Amino acid sequence: MTALTLYDYLPSGNGYKVRLVLKQLGIPYRLVEVDIKKGLTRTPEFLARNPNGRIPLLQIEGQGYLSESHAIIWYLAEGSRLVPTDRLQRAQLWQWLSFEQYNLEPNIGTVRFWLHSLGKTPAELGEKLKDKVDKGYQALEVLEKGLTEREFLVGDQYSLADIGLYAYTHVAEEGDFSLVRFPAIRAWLKRVEEQPAYEPITAS
Amino acid sequence: MTALTLYDYLPSGNGYKVRLVLKQLGIPYRLVEVDIKKGLTRTPEFLARNPNGRIPLLQIEGQGYLSESHAIIWYLAEGSRLVPTDRLQRAQLWQWLSFEQYNLEPNIGTVRFWLHSLGKTPAELGEKLKDKVDKGYQALEVLEKGLTEREFLVGDQYSLADIGLYAYTHVAEEGDFSLVRFPAIRAWLKRVEEQPAYEPITAS
Repeated sequence: MTALTLYDYLPSGNGYKVRLVLKQLGIPYRLVEVDIKKGLTRTPEFLARNPNGRIPLLQIEGQGYLSESHAIIWYLAEGSRLVPTDRLQRAQLWQWLSFEQYNLEPNIGTVRFWLHSLGKTPAELGEKLKDKVDKGYQALEVLEKGLTEREFLVGDQYSLADIGLYAYTHVAEEGDFSLVRFPAIRAWLKRVEEQPAYEPITAS
Repeated sequence: MTALTLYDYLPSGNGYKVRLVLKQLGIPYRLVEVDIKKGLTRTPEFLARNPNGRIPLLQIEGQGYLSESHAIIWYLAEGSRLVPTDRLQRAQLWQWLSFEQYNLEPNIGTVRFWLHSLGKTPAELGEKLKDKVDKGYQALEVLEKGLTEREFLVGDQYSLADIGLYAYTHVAEEGDFSLVRFPAIRAWLKRVEEQPAYEPITAS
C-alpha cells in the first residue's frame, strides 16, 4: 500500500474507527492532528482537501483523499480478516455501518460531543438534548437485539461492523447514556476489547 | 438468486433506490407495500422482521432479512456493472453513500417528508425546518463540487453512488429546495435519467 496520511481529531469516535483498523491490520501511517473545536476542518486549506469539512480524512499518496470513516475503513480492510467474503454477510456489515451513521452516531456521538467535549449543560440544550437522548436509547435497543445470542454483529467473527458500532457505544457514558439495561452490549464491548492489537480511544 | 420480497413504501426515496437497482439489473421480486404514515413499520409483526422499524426491507428466501437501503443495493449489485472493481473506487462509492445518509437524506429527505408527504407548513415547523434547510443546501454544495467536471460520482461510470445520491436530490424541489444554483447537479440528474431501464420514483 502507498504512503498514508490520516487527518484526525483524537477524541473523535469516527477517527478512532480508522486508527483501530490501521493498528489491528498493522498498516503504517502518518498522523496529522486537526482540532475541530478550533474550526480547523473549515479552513479554505482543509476544505480544498475535503469539501465536506470533516475528519477523519485519509490522504493516499498519488491518488487523492478519502473521507467518511466507514469508506476509509472499508478501503483499508477489504480483503483482510475484518471483512467477510460471503455476499450476504458483506451486506449485513453495511447494514450495521449504515445504522451506526444514521441512528447511533448522530444521537450518542453528538450528545457526547455536546456534554463531554464542549462542556454544555442539559439546561442550555433543552429539548434538542431530550430528542437525541430518546433516539440514542432507541438505537441502543436495536443494537442490544442485534447482539442477543450472538458473539459479534456479522456471522460469528469480529469484523468492521463491530469496530464501527463499538466506537461511540463504548464511550456512550461520556454522553450520560447508561448501559445498565443492555447486558448483551456490555458483554460484546468486552469481547471487542479482547481482540488482538486492540487499543482504547485516545482520552479527550 | 433466491426469491426476493421487498417491503417498501412507494414515495420513499430510500425504497426507490432499491427498486431502481432491481429494475436496472433485471432482478424479479415481489413487492409488499407498507404505509409508514399509518405506522405499519412499527407493528410487532414488522418489528420482528426489522427491529429498527423501517423500510425498505428485503426478505431473502431461506436466509432472512436485510435492512438499510445502501446495504440492500450493495447486496443486489456487488459483482454487477453498478459496482466498480477498483479498490479506491469502491471506497469512493461508500464515501458518497455515507455522505448521503449523514448529510443529505436526513435534511433534504426529511424536509420533503414533512412538507410534501405530511403536508406540514413552515410556520408549524419553525427553527427545526430552518436548520434542516441550511444543512440541506450545504449538502447540495458538497454534491455540486463533487460533480463539477465529472460525468458521474465515481470513476467515469454510472454506479450505485449515482443511484444513492439521485434518489432524494431529484425530488429536492418537493421539499422546496431550489436547484437553480447547482448546474453540475442538474446536468447529472439528466445523465442519470438517460440510463438504460431508468424509471422515475413512484408519484406520491
